[in-house]
Amino acid sequence: MDLKDYCFDGEGALHLDELPHSAREAGVDKEQRPAYEARTAENLARIAALQEKLYAEGREGLIVLLQAMDAAGKDSVIKHVMGAVNPQGVDVVSFKQPSKEELSHDYLWRAACALPARGKIAIFNRSYYEDVLVVRVHRLHKSYQMPARCLDEDDKDFFERRHKQIRGFEEYLYDNGYRIVKLFLNVSREKQKERFLERIDDEAKNWKFSSSDLKERAFWDEYQRVYADVLRDTASRHAPWYVIPADQKWYTRWLVSEAVLRALEEIDPHFPELPEGDQAMLSACKRQLLDEDGGEA
Amino acid sequence: MDLKDYCFDGEGALHLDELPHSAREAGVDKEQRPAYEARTAENLARIAALQEKLYAEGREGLIVLLQAMDAAGKDSVIKHVMGAVNPQGVDVVSFKQPSKEELSHDYLWRAACALPARGKIAIFNRSYYEDVLVVRVHRLHKSYQMPARCLDEDDKDFFERRHKQIRGFEEYLYDNGYRIVKLFLNVSREKQKERFLERIDDEAKNWKFSSSDLKERAFWDEYQRVYADVLRDTASRHAPWYVIPADQKWYTRWLVSEAVLRALEEIDPHFPELPEGDQAMLSACKRQLLDEDGGEA
Repeated sequence: MDLKDYCFDGEGALHLDELPHSAREAGVDKEQRPAYEARTAENLARIAALQEKLYAEGREGLIVLLQAMDAAGKDSVIKHVMGAVNPQGVDVVSFKQPSKEELSHDYLWRAACALPARGKIAIFNRSYYEDVLVVRVHRLHKSYQMPARCLDEDDKDFFERRHKQIRGFEEYLYDNGYRIVKLFLNVSREKQKERFLERIDDEAKNWKFSSSDLKERAFWDEYQRVYADVLRDTASRHAPWYVIPADQKWYTRWLVSEAVLRALEEIDPHFPELPEGDQAMLSACKRQLLDEDGGEA
Repeated sequence: MDLKDYCFDGEGALHLDELPHSAREAGVDKEQRPAYEARTAENLARIAALQEKLYAEGREGLIVLLQAMDAAGKDSVIKHVMGAVNPQGVDVVSFKQPSKEELSHDYLWRAACALPARGKIAIFNRSYYEDVLVVRVHRLHKSYQMPARCLDEDDKDFFERRHKQIRGFEEYLYDNGYRIVKLFLNVSREKQKERFLERIDDEAKNWKFSSSDLKERAFWDEYQRVYADVLRDTASRHAPWYVIPADQKWYTRWLVSEAVLRALEEIDPHFPELPEGDQAMLSACKRQLLDEDGGEA
């Protein structure tokens, strides 16, 4: 299987429960790990080179959006894939529980404000998709201060409307110079258990665990159902979803690097060419610099 | 004529060139000025009272958006109509020539970031509509750093797409707890000339005039054509346009106060009722305060 098998753009069906969590389920043997790691390293070098051009040109912005269950490896992907890129060109935006100020605005507000300038990459660690995921699972919208017209009696309508709004938002962004790469890190329930146990047993990882993680885990099936809905409804040509097996980090990283590389290749950035006058100016500056010390050294 | 004659919600035709600029053209005699001023004062008192409730309830946000040719009276409307409201609940956002940072984002970015918290009123002094007005008249989009896919060969398509995006944005806002009152202050070419001459002759008004205002005036007809297009394309049930005669300030203010009042009445805000437990708490606090000094005084 390669990248295109994990890419959903609204054409064709998306059955989340049939998609692989592990490299093995994807038909990749663990003996192949070194080969995949080598490919990932190659991709990262190409990503870094393209990002330089993206930044220099300033014509298009890239949003890499990560969604997943806990312990699926979002932080690890950010560190090991996006860490390869010059940090000056990258902003990481973490969407945590919304503040009072954020809750008193429309739900896309904090994402809209955090959009990267064109030429930059923003990594959304979680995103506005939380507003159709955790909000739906825990029915948080029921306690919102909103006019009655905004709260359909039927929750299904409420969230379908949000899906439509999100599609509109993403299409608008595409039309205004942005690409969005949406990554769902698809971890298995068993692997989450294993990683939680590691976080409990390893003192250096204790800080990553909270008892509320276990409470969320109890909603596993409900989250899977909601994710299936959300992914299906919001996969589009402008903003496809990649559903990426997340049980083996080396395999996840390879696929993420493939997806980011593909987006950058589609953008196809170039270093800006100087206008002719500027070339002459550069030559003049060079001469002045070389003449500065009367030709010494 | 009353407010509804100036309100366009996408139903029915909008012919900008047939709409009145002055009170007289609207069938209102200048002898009626004191009566209109009295009505305006009444409206302002009601607006101020409703705004207190809007703020206390925090359920819905209000955007009052002003567009106009130069010297149509935007600043005056802000001072004399919105000045009646507690400034704590009002933010005035001026959309000037975009900064480099703003230009490197999508064109709705600065408006999206400046949205009021629910419970507040934001006054947009100019707005994202500039991106389909001045940008179109002066073809500024031609110099934008944007991917080729975002720049249609045909300008008409480019701006029609923006109109659609704006409709989508405003519908999204309506669905998420905002009302938008869009006011076009419809000044006549003759009245602009008169006000420009005042600004030139009156030293205290010199700062309001710039020679570039005259350059823009040369594009009067083109602006009228573009405004006609924009108003027609973006008037909607969710976000109607009011096309308000702007040659007499007393008449303009009355109509603006009517439009703002109508929006607040539609919102129909209420002071939040305390839950029962909190009532008991208030009574306990009151007893404690009264007992504080052993019943002295």
